[in-house]
Amino acid sequence: MTAMKSVDKPYLVERQDKPQLTKRLNRIEGQIRGIGRMIEEDRYCVDILTQISAVRSALDAVALQLLRGHTHGCVQTAIRSGDGDQAIDELLSVVEKFAR
Amino acid sequence: MTAMKSVDKPYLVERQDKPQLTKRLNRIEGQIRGIGRMIEEDRYCVDILTQISAVRSALDAVALQLLRGHTHGCVQTAIRSGDGDQAIDELLSVVEKFAR
Amino acid sequence: MTAMKSVDKPYLVERQDKPQLTKRLNRIEGQIRGIGRMIEEDRYCVDILTQISAVRSALDAVALQLLRGHTHGCVQTAIRSGDGDQAIDELLSVVEKFAR
Amino acid sequence: MTAMKSVDKPYLVERQDKPQLTKRLNRIEGQIRGIGRMIEEDRYCVDILTQISAVRSALDAVALQLLRGHTHGCVQTAIRSGDGDQAIDELLSVVEKFAR
Repeated sequence: MTAMKSVDKPYLVERQDKPQLTKRLNRIEGQIRGIGRMIEEDRYCVDILTQISAVRSALDAVALQLLRGHTHGCVQTAIRSGDGDQAIDELLSVVEKFAR
Repeated sequence: MTAMKSVDKPYLVERQDKPQLTKRLNRIEGQIRGIGRMIEEDRYCVDILTQISAVRSALDAVALQLLRGHTHGCVQTAIRSGDGDQAIDELLSVVEKFAR
Repeated sequence: MTAMKSVDKPYLVERQDKPQLTKRLNRIEGQIRGIGRMIEEDRYCVDILTQISAVRSALDAVALQLLRGHTHGCVQTAIRSGDGDQAIDELLSVVEKFAR
Repeated sequence: MTAMKSVDKPYLVERQDKPQLTKRLNRIEGQIRGIGRMIEEDRYCVDILTQISAVRSALDAVALQLLRGHTHGCVQTAIRSGDGDQAIDELLSVVEKFAR
């Protein structure tokens, strides 16, 4: 029971993170649209690439926030319930995708 | 004169790449919106992270296509006109952002 | 007590991983020496860069193996002992360095 | 003739870069040996991972220096001799390995 206290609905995005994540994703969506416009308007490639690199960082920040919530929440809960090894393997295969 | 033949308007996105780049960016914009929905709908974090990793790859493909057009076009033109060193330094500082 | 069974000496490299990690690092050391020789012998830059990229992958594999052992071992133990949050924050700050 | 002035032996590591590259690689070799010792001495995984992340940055710096010399030297020479497109494709396939 205590083991479950930090998440009432396990394996989901932490509730308190949702508004910030939504805000960040809306902003990224706007940045992607901005890059589309830069291409339409024949803007200089290097400026477009700089903008893409900024979006990539913003996306990594979202991924890291999700990873943090997931590890403190679901992974911790799984470990306390004795199902840790599978949750950890899954976590690490996701980390591997980002570390490449 | 010959040096300029591959780009009629130097320092811009190669014309022939524009439709494909626009298509790719529209698709990425849709993927970002999809990630927003996954968060709203309380989907499993690991699935959201997998989706973010897919968007990152799609964004890298766009960056690489721009980089290719830029190097074959603007950088090559600059080198042929004798302004190569500056164009190369600028190119490498952009590559550095992506290689990190 | 049960919580501690997977590591008898917490916070250290898993014993069973040590021979393989040592072997991998010896191999990487040899590859680095090989790259030094390639530079001395005026080998083609692109071949040297390809070799550096191979070493980077080998190093990432070592990091991932350590990360796996650390998460299954120390992090899991810390969570079971109730010190999970600090161990998770530390884990994620290391992951962040590799995901960059 | 003038096109060749920046490299007397095309497609090789720039001569002036060799001592610094050798020094950097010797240092990286020592760092790898240090990581091996940390594993032998049962040092804390997170400290070892931090050290691996430092080696990765050092290796990326070597790659970037080689890339810079290669682009200013061989790629520029190839473009001036009219063989630019092939040299650029090769350059970008190497960049792709590092940006991944």
